[in-house]
Amino acid sequence: MSKKIYFTPGPSELYFTVEGHLKTALREQVGSISHRSQAFKNIYKETEENLRTLLNLPADYKVFFTSSATEIWEHLIRNCVENESYHLVNGAFSKRFWEFSGLLGRTNLKHESEEGNGAKPGDLNIPGSSELIGITLNESSTGVSYPLDWLKYLRSTYQESLIAVDGVSSIPIPEIDFSQIDSAYFSVQKCFGLPAGLGVWLVGPRCMEKAREMNAKGLLSATYRSLLSLEKSASNYQTVETPNVLAIYLLGKVVIDMLVKGIDTIRRESRYKAAVLHQMIDDLDWLSEFIPEKELRSETVVVANCTRDNDQVVKQLEEAGFVIGKGYGKFKTSQLRFANFPTHSREQVEQLADVMAKI
Amino acid sequence: MSKKIYFTPGPSELYFTVEGHLKTALREQVGSISHRSQAFKNIYKETEENLRTLLNLPADYKVFFTSSATEIWEHLIRNCVENESYHLVNGAFSKRFWEFSGLLGRTNLKHESEEGNGAKPGDLNIPGSSELIGITLNESSTGVSYPLDWLKYLRSTYQESLIAVDGVSSIPIPEIDFSQIDSAYFSVQKCFGLPAGLGVWLVGPRCMEKAREMNAKGLLSATYRSLLSLEKSASNYQTVETPNVLAIYLLGKVVIDMLVKGIDTIRRESRYKAAVLHQMIDDLDWLSEFIPEKELRSETVVVANCTRDNDQVVKQLEEAGFVIGKGYGKFKTSQLRFANFPTHSREQVEQLADVMAKI
Repeated sequence: MSKKIYFTPGPSELYFTVEGHLKTALREQVGSISHRSQAFKNIYKETEENLRTLLNLPADYKVFFTSSATEIWEHLIRNCVENESYHLVNGAFSKRFWEFSGLLGRTNLKHESEEGNGAKPGDLNIPGSSELIGITLNESSTGVSYPLDWLKYLRSTYQESLIAVDGVSSIPIPEIDFSQIDSAYFSVQKCFGLPAGLGVWLVGPRCMEKAREMNAKGLLSATYRSLLSLEKSASNYQTVETPNVLAIYLLGKVVIDMLVKGIDTIRRESRYKAAVLHQMIDDLDWLSEFIPEKELRSETVVVANCTRDNDQVVKQLEEAGFVIGKGYGKFKTSQLRFANFPTHSREQVEQLADVMAKI
Repeated sequence: MSKKIYFTPGPSELYFTVEGHLKTALREQVGSISHRSQAFKNIYKETEENLRTLLNLPADYKVFFTSSATEIWEHLIRNCVENESYHLVNGAFSKRFWEFSGLLGRTNLKHESEEGNGAKPGDLNIPGSSELIGITLNESSTGVSYPLDWLKYLRSTYQESLIAVDGVSSIPIPEIDFSQIDSAYFSVQKCFGLPAGLGVWLVGPRCMEKAREMNAKGLLSATYRSLLSLEKSASNYQTVETPNVLAIYLLGKVVIDMLVKGIDTIRRESRYKAAVLHQMIDDLDWLSEFIPEKELRSETVVVANCTRDNDQVVKQLEEAGFVIGKGYGKFKTSQLRFANFPTHSREQVEQLADVMAKI
């Protein structure tokens, strides 16, 4: 079985240096070291510091490791929402976050866009009582991506609310101004090209403050994953449970590789590759853009309607060495999804477009 | 840097086949496959089925994957305890489970033994109102291990309560009769010799029933990790979040290796190696048993008081190629801990004892 190139929207192709780093990890016995040891603290510190540089993260932000982004939805509500949260819903993942808030007994308000669309600023009328606004920068299920201007708009219009940004399948591509938001989070199996099993939670000072207030009122129900526990552990490069040490190590190494390549180069290449994929959709008469508005089309998860039997397309692509994604949920049989992550080279994306043109 | 042999109580030495399996995983691109794919379902199914065989798990037990055992403490309380739980506390980890119950607003009762000791049956007077009894079969912090008879005693004496067994650093060594208990859980970085980042939760029918009752009353606060969600996902070999696919794959492979070797052989070797370690403690005048009662001494985490500077001992051992653990918590400077996990061969344990005798 020869290796294939994964263009699935995550888990996806591993970052091209991961195999080498994994071999080094085995040689250095990273899988055996204690999470209480200095060796682990050094790994945590290195990963955190390089991530701060890559993302241009303000000094007053905290970096916490969790097992998934799903988990972070729950922690955001338990730690930062006493009564009410508001969610911009435009696909399965933003909806799930909204649902979590309800499951946790909060009033969960939403603005729901049709799939393939996003909210317009004028659409929203978020009550002052909403303590947190959840926005999914890049909906992996539909490929809808909010322009970064949205974050500034939300901040300037709803100054009292905390702004939590789901960056699962987009960070580090969008140049987020973290001073305009209060928290962001992502999973490593998307743009960072790592095996699944690690979430990264970036937490700004206003979220920390809110958690402290809730704690003072006896309202923190997050046990060991309260922001206060996380902060205490992280201040000494420790975690609140035995973590996925290997994943934290690998993330640190990939972030260094990205710094060496340069985030500007990575972002420029991302734009170029997205253009190739959109051109491909335009060129093929059996594909069409799912998202009508150009400025909402994601760079990192490109979604197309497909009039051919998409099962057949996926199979033919696989025979040619490329694994692509089908649509999500109700679009499972009618769409195709293509990841455009930093590990995907320009040549690979061009090859993919060539193969698509020939089938 | 030449490789060392880790005798730390977990994370510890990787199971001797893990490196090979990891290389196969890279070749088969396990890190890239979708957790929604048939390929992942096959991995989940294989791992689950082989684990059932290895542990002789009854058919009515469920197998769920989490990110750690710490997490399972929280889920046990949220899913199976309305008002009150009871905990046999004899070290840091059993105490932490007890604390979680309090943090979650339940009445958390305990019997606390001095460290190095365990409860005696006559010590306990567990109220009928305690819905769940937590027992830590093997306290990784102190090396106290309850004999299996304890589970039968608890079941026959407290028939109304659910019995939850912390098997973190002992499963699959003790031959647990799962029909005598209601749940057990473990982490893969102990006896299974895997990198940290996966917990396994075994859930019997009475726990499932309790969760259903609590759900009917609107008392389940576990969101996506309610037993009902976990059950629904697992019935189709799916998980409630993007899981640590690679760890589930590796666990499945190690379990096959253990089945090939034979669990009886593994258990017999474990007893032999534990005897070597206890003989070593007996032979060296600067070591002594921490746990006075022989029948409470763990086979898998052997703990000794150390009258020499234990920092120096650890360093000298490391120079000789062995990494051992220091004491936990307040015993950090006065004890040594030695893991005796299935990956440790008889020869390695004998070598360790030889080196200890020479320093």
